[in-house]
Amino acid sequence: MASWLPVPSKSHFSLANVPFGIISTSDQSTHRPAIAIGEHVLDLSAFSQHDGFSKLSDFPSDKLSVFSQTTLNDFASLGRPVHRATRAYLQDIFRQETPYPEILKDNETLRKKALIPLAQIQSHLPLSIGDYTDFFAGRNHAHTVGTLFRGAANALQPNYNHLPVAYHSRASSVVVSGTSLRRPWGQVLPNPQAKEPVFQPCGRLDMELELGMFICKGNELGSPVPVTSAEEHIFGYVLMNDWSARDIQQWEYVPLGPFNAKNFGTTISPWVVLADALEGFRTRGLVNDIPPKAYLDEQRKDPILDINLEVSLTTAKGNTTRITETSSENLLWSWPQMIAHHSISGCNLRTGDLLGSGTISGLEAGTQGSLLEQTLGGKQFVQLQGGEERKFIQDGDTITITGWSGSAEDGIVGFGECSGTILAAVSRD
Amino acid sequence: MASWLPVPSKSHFSLANVPFGIISTSDQSTHRPAIAIGEHVLDLSAFSQHDGFSKLSDFPSDKLSVFSQTTLNDFASLGRPVHRATRAYLQDIFRQETPYPEILKDNETLRKKALIPLAQIQSHLPLSIGDYTDFFAGRNHAHTVGTLFRGAANALQPNYNHLPVAYHSRASSVVVSGTSLRRPWGQVLPNPQAKEPVFQPCGRLDMELELGMFICKGNELGSPVPVTSAEEHIFGYVLMNDWSARDIQQWEYVPLGPFNAKNFGTTISPWVVLADALEGFRTRGLVNDIPPKAYLDEQRKDPILDINLEVSLTTAKGNTTRITETSSENLLWSWPQMIAHHSISGCNLRTGDLLGSGTISGLEAGTQGSLLEQTLGGKQFVQLQGGEERKFIQDGDTITITGWSGSAEDGIVGFGECSGTILAAVSRD
Repeated sequence: MASWLPVPSKSHFSLANVPFGIISTSDQSTHRPAIAIGEHVLDLSAFSQHDGFSKLSDFPSDKLSVFSQTTLNDFASLGRPVHRATRAYLQDIFRQETPYPEILKDNETLRKKALIPLAQIQSHLPLSIGDYTDFFAGRNHAHTVGTLFRGAANALQPNYNHLPVAYHSRASSVVVSGTSLRRPWGQVLPNPQAKEPVFQPCGRLDMELELGMFICKGNELGSPVPVTSAEEHIFGYVLMNDWSARDIQQWEYVPLGPFNAKNFGTTISPWVVLADALEGFRTRGLVNDIPPKAYLDEQRKDPILDINLEVSLTTAKGNTTRITETSSENLLWSWPQMIAHHSISGCNLRTGDLLGSGTISGLEAGTQGSLLEQTLGGKQFVQLQGGEERKFIQDGDTITITGWSGSAEDGIVGFGECSGTILAAVSRD
Repeated sequence: MASWLPVPSKSHFSLANVPFGIISTSDQSTHRPAIAIGEHVLDLSAFSQHDGFSKLSDFPSDKLSVFSQTTLNDFASLGRPVHRATRAYLQDIFRQETPYPEILKDNETLRKKALIPLAQIQSHLPLSIGDYTDFFAGRNHAHTVGTLFRGAANALQPNYNHLPVAYHSRASSVVVSGTSLRRPWGQVLPNPQAKEPVFQPCGRLDMELELGMFICKGNELGSPVPVTSAEEHIFGYVLMNDWSARDIQQWEYVPLGPFNAKNFGTTISPWVVLADALEGFRTRGLVNDIPPKAYLDEQRKDPILDINLEVSLTTAKGNTTRITETSSENLLWSWPQMIAHHSISGCNLRTGDLLGSGTISGLEAGTQGSLLEQTLGGKQFVQLQGGEERKFIQDGDTITITGWSGSAEDGIVGFGECSGTILAAVSRD
């Protein structure tokens, strides 16, 4: 799918992708929707206001104001058929042999107004998030961490293969890639034998490599979403780093789950890759020997998205090391199963709700999505470029997640980067 | 504090109270702010539009539009000095010897427009809730439930007296009093020895008597709220029933905490009792032998609100029984301590966030805020009027929480009712 706009073959934002985000620019601080295409974005607010969507027939004509909103919630709420038509239309607009050259390709005025180099924009949270729920669907991660804490025989809890385990997490502290976070303080046990906690900055700060998913279509309270129609509720996907304070978590999490260990920040990538863009990239995922209950039975052979995932760590000295190379095939539960389980109680999901997959890990060294796994609970170092090494994240370290499907030949469907730097704790004494 | 408007001495909404809520009426479906006073409400949208606030000098003049919003968030965000001034002004408006008789007392036109009988209004959620966090600060509840599950020696987890344990809960399914909820389905173990779960309607549906608190003033991500200034972040309080599916909870909650067991619904009372209205009702609360860490050290002798609390159960047959009589003095942690702990990691709180206290229970029969406690984990019945009995909540049962401080002589500062009925599960086969 070639474009009249130069798109580098290695770009995550090929014409096969067309991800949506929220941008601002130095000369226009208003947050507004855009798509990413190669090394540019198309400002959808400007595009819409200058009749860019005039040839898009499959769009509710009284809803064009969604492209002048400061979040993507209103666009998302229009539903997947509208997202599909909008993405296909924008692909047509940028296609080499576009059927509508007068709209943008041959319209220098609108190109100047609406096509902006990626390097000149600031990204913002793509949606206003109502509730954020984090799942635990990466079974390798659950197994490795469970083995560290309880031994291999009891690695997985009895419920693990029966239902997609999840917990409610914190929506207010979800931030967009590029936002630095302060190392949190908290109560921690100073050593494994200690009975009394001390109050100090987190000493075991970790990353968690995850995928995030945004809900487009809600359900009414009391009316669960059937697993077989759950795809219609999916707006799209982002990369996610669910930062974790392991020492705080260990002291606080029994019996009600992680709290301060997670709520100081969660980083997501800025561009939402629409569900349709990833429809062609599917795999079986991890095999579950337990037959699913009917409400979780998706009855498809390729329920899991197939996305290549990498994590790199850049130290304050500037050394960058790729520390993780894995794939989303390391998930046991699919997004439709997560939606079905989330709502089976009657819980209502709303447009803009964010669901996290849980940490995605392989089982071998260099494929694990957390340092807890890679260092065997802080017992060994991860070796970095330049002779540096880490057990957990140090002040000034930057964690960058990337992810993509597809190929340079057929067009990469990628997420760009999900990046965040940890700043030194401030004094609380 | 006598009023020119007849206020029954037993009314929860004396002139010493002045709680804020969101109403609509049959002839005006727009949601709008109001206060409750005796057996009436004052429609603040109408009152404001007809210059009712013209004598209120301590109010930002460009902010009167907060009284035309569909939630109280914008009013809450103005901060406690404005809430205080507004409440005091409205008390002056209704006082027998009001300094401003021309505003309402002698203004029949405005009285007809803005004073509405309580029986004629519909209540709605008072604020748009960003995040909802549930604490576990009722130590008697934690101890009794811990004893049921682990024996008295290990009743409280090692962290319990060191920090206010909490978990992130579900904001989307918080509903206002009067909203019926469907009995949830879920995975449960059919008996204590079972290894395989079954999928069925919840068989151990429970209530949880709690107080809720709304945040008015947020904090920036990375900037904790000091415990000594946390009161400035409190808008006010509501009653809360955090419905709980005990059998679903037992199967799902290890290791990440309650999920579907809680997210099918949480009921709150409609009228927010402002922090200032309860300032005079304080007590020591439960005694903690563990000295608090500095960030939790409030250094006051009466940190806990003193509110009388009752729960009644009305069966489908119409028999009403008061099953709980207790007090909020059964809390170990104060609201400022909860705020300080919540944010000590750097987590940002926002206007409209809801915090729950956790279940409030005494230690004796008839003082416990959950049926799990009253029935010793379902081992004995609670006797009801009319010869009925319950271990857990049956279809058609209505749970009603009431709560108040003060006296008929000095004016009751009450919450009204927090009520909800459980409907039969719908078929999911």
